[in-house]
Amino acid sequence: MATSAPVETAAMRRAIELAARGLGHTSPNPVVGCVVLDSAGRTAGEGWHQRAGGPHAEVHALRAAGERARGGTAVVTLEPCNHTGRTGPCAQALIDAGVARVVYAVADPHPSATGGALTLAEAGIDVEGGLLADEAAAGNEAWLTSVLRGRPFVLWKYAATLDGRIAAADGTSRWISSPESRADVHRLRAAADAVIVGSGTARVDDPQLGARVSGLADDAVSQPLRVVVDSSASAVKAGARVLDGTAPTLIAVAEDADAAHLEGLAPLVRLPRAPGRGLSIPALLQALQARDVRSVLLEGGPTLAGAFLAAGAVDKVVGYLAPVLLGAGPSVVGDVGITTLTQALRLDVTDTDRLGPDLRITATVSHPATAATRPRPGTVRAAERPASALRPEEN
Amino acid sequence: MATSAPVETAAMRRAIELAARGLGHTSPNPVVGCVVLDSAGRTAGEGWHQRAGGPHAEVHALRAAGERARGGTAVVTLEPCNHTGRTGPCAQALIDAGVARVVYAVADPHPSATGGALTLAEAGIDVEGGLLADEAAAGNEAWLTSVLRGRPFVLWKYAATLDGRIAAADGTSRWISSPESRADVHRLRAAADAVIVGSGTARVDDPQLGARVSGLADDAVSQPLRVVVDSSASAVKAGARVLDGTAPTLIAVAEDADAAHLEGLAPLVRLPRAPGRGLSIPALLQALQARDVRSVLLEGGPTLAGAFLAAGAVDKVVGYLAPVLLGAGPSVVGDVGITTLTQALRLDVTDTDRLGPDLRITATVSHPATAATRPRPGTVRAAERPASALRPEEN
Ligand SMILES: NC(=O)c1ccc[n+]([C@@H]2O[C@H](COP(=O)([O-])OP(=O)(O)OC[C@H]3O[C@@H](n4cnc5c(N)ncnc54)[C@H](OP(=O)(O)O)[C@@H]3O)[C@@H](O)[C@H]2O)c1
Ligand SMILES: NC(=O)c1ccc[n+]([C@@H]2O[C@H](COP(=O)([O-])OP(=O)(O)OC[C@H]3O[C@@H](n4cnc5c(N)ncnc54)[C@H](OP(=O)(O)O)[C@@H]3O)[C@@H](O)[C@H]2O)c1
Repeated sequence: MATSAPVETAAMRRAIELAARGLGHTSPNPVVGCVVLDSAGRTAGEGWHQRAGGPHAEVHALRAAGERARGGTAVVTLEPCNHTGRTGPCAQALIDAGVARVVYAVADPHPSATGGALTLAEAGIDVEGGLLADEAAAGNEAWLTSVLRGRPFVLWKYAATLDGRIAAADGTSRWISSPESRADVHRLRAAADAVIVGSGTARVDDPQLGARVSGLADDAVSQPLRVVVDSSASAVKAGARVLDGTAPTLIAVAEDADAAHLEGLAPLVRLPRAPGRGLSIPALLQALQARDVRSVLLEGGPTLAGAFLAAGAVDKVVGYLAPVLLGAGPSVVGDVGITTLTQALRLDVTDTDRLGPDLRITATVSHPATAATRPRPGTVRAAERPASALRPEEN
Repeated sequence: MATSAPVETAAMRRAIELAARGLGHTSPNPVVGCVVLDSAGRTAGEGWHQRAGGPHAEVHALRAAGERARGGTAVVTLEPCNHTGRTGPCAQALIDAGVARVVYAVADPHPSATGGALTLAEAGIDVEGGLLADEAAAGNEAWLTSVLRGRPFVLWKYAATLDGRIAAADGTSRWISSPESRADVHRLRAAADAVIVGSGTARVDDPQLGARVSGLADDAVSQPLRVVVDSSASAVKAGARVLDGTAPTLIAVAEDADAAHLEGLAPLVRLPRAPGRGLSIPALLQALQARDVRSVLLEGGPTLAGAFLAAGAVDKVVGYLAPVLLGAGPSVVGDVGITTLTQALRLDVTDTDRLGPDLRITATVSHPATAATRPRPGTVRAAERPASALRPEEN
């Protein structure tokens, strides 16, 4: 088995870029990018998984390469799939196209499954996994996390002042953050499968929750499912902006809520109440998972964010910090059940950026219970991995 | 008049570095650095103002240069002084040493004064101002601000969680910030003339407020004056760590406070009460200015910080943000008198840095009333400036 040449590393970097174009469009599938090199190492075809139900990245790239794929190398961000879904297995397509070598970044993350690496190796193809695995895994962060946790990936975003306020004492909050920060939130929305707010935010702000990305036509932007967690079905009323029909909406209400007035206005999901306040967060995430949602943007407010944090249901945090001081007003996160410093929720800051006058802080939440069991994606070679079945979520 | 050569720019950069060594030691004087180049442009002598009452930077550098100064160039961070204090005027020393040229960065900031530039020019020396003026002014930020405002420069530092808390619900706060951040605070203390805390902090934390800088012997570190603002003289008691004798301490109490128990323990300053709560902040700063304090590190807590902010008495903010969420606990700044978003105090973030796991945010507070009147230091040439007197604070 050869070690990846620089031309393959460059192709993988390109494949990771291509994969990102699918963000927001592919759930419940991952985003995948593929570059096919001919036998001389020149790019012969490119492709990415564009939408669930459509051809996989490898198929797009092989089609573009045509006969030039024969004897060449397929460079792909995720281990090729091995089962026949709506589009046929990619391993077989690669074999049929006559490629001599397959290089992938991230191995199939399903604990009990292998993808196509073994099938490819058994067909005599030179297979190597793990090239730029960390970069590729970062690009597939939401999907990989959802596989690992069995629930959608949750990114919580907030906008606050330096003293941690989301509004002034009189409730005014438009706009704490800069236009640049607000545009960035729309980018996050477009990459998410669903956006969630609590009934408090729905009541106060009547948000529309759509994604508008400047430079892109509205129909080129993937609109997330808009979810309002409204236990008593009392915050969302006819005429609410979230019911404007520009994107699907889902109202989560308690099993016993009287929601007759929402009949025909938006789909409802009935959920059990949490032991304390509001609805069960795990049940909410389960209901979204069942609707093919793999990534969620939690937009608050502080009460719901506190409940998600307390439930261990936040994977990543993006905070927009405006260089502003208020000295009064509600704080960015409500009760998380923490009373003393040793219980504090600790994050790892992965990035800080300037967005206009604001700072954007990106951090991950460590879940101590599961961190140790997290597989190191893509570092296992085909020959070392147990033979097994299909990637269950692919279709 | 020649334009500065690269060798002069390099010398100025070095002079700015040298000047910084004086931070914390020179008040009520500025920090100043000087490099003397010989007639061939080689460094002949270096010096900096090491402590108030000691020789000025120019005198140190001229002494080191000796005869090599004749026909050479003196590069100095601040316009040379023109008056006879404890150490004699630098302009005359430069004339006596026979330098042919003087390049300085920042002009004397006193609105009604010129320093020695005119004297030098009248003696036939080639004089140029403004070289690296912004860098040099940044190095003298505290002193220049104190001249401009007629009160000490105030840097407010705080350490908080991402949700703006300075302690957990039960009051525990050791340690929210990282060891790296705490070491950085000691660096700020060493550079300040005084450190201030409120009676609330004195009561809860019993802080020692000394500067310990790792790698430096204790007596090489300049210890700030420790100030506790304790209106009723009830927070600081015999045995308080702030009374440990390792550095001077000042307790600010109300004019009518019963402070008999502090007799002989620490100097007191009696101040008028503020219209609302506590003591008058302007009176406090005036009292410190009268004690030769030109830079203050305000260490909180939130109540006192809110009062300083409300009084327009904060020039710069350094926030240490720990990647931690608490969801409850006191906020980093108390009431500033702001009730609605349009009144919010807006800052300009100048720097963000990582200190271990923490973020350090540095920001300046714009004071709209005075910003426009701020002189652009060092951009005026000697010949264009009005003749005038001495730099009143030099000694
Ligand atoms: N700056 C920002 O980033 C940002 C973002 C969003 C909102 N906001 C601001 O936040 C404010 C509203 O915040 P909020 O805290 O009052 O409301 P919220 O967090 O949006 O909603 C809280 C409500 O959600 C419902 N809920 C359902 N399940 C829950 C659960 N498991 N745990 C907790 N709550 C649950 C509860 O009401 P029911 O059970 O009765 O439904 C609860 O009162 C507005 O002023 C808005 O402008 C700011
Ligand atoms: N994380 C951090 O960066 C940091 C830094 C410092 C403190 N802290 C924490 O802050 C907490 C204490 O904060 P705090 O807000 O209670 O106390 P504080 O701000 O230290 O002190 C407030 C007190 O100062 C006195 N004061 C005098 N003149 C004043 C004026 N003009 N305006 C307002 N107050 C004036 C008042 O009491 P009298 O008039 O009766 O004297 C007032 O109650 C502690 O838990 C401490 O650990 C955290």
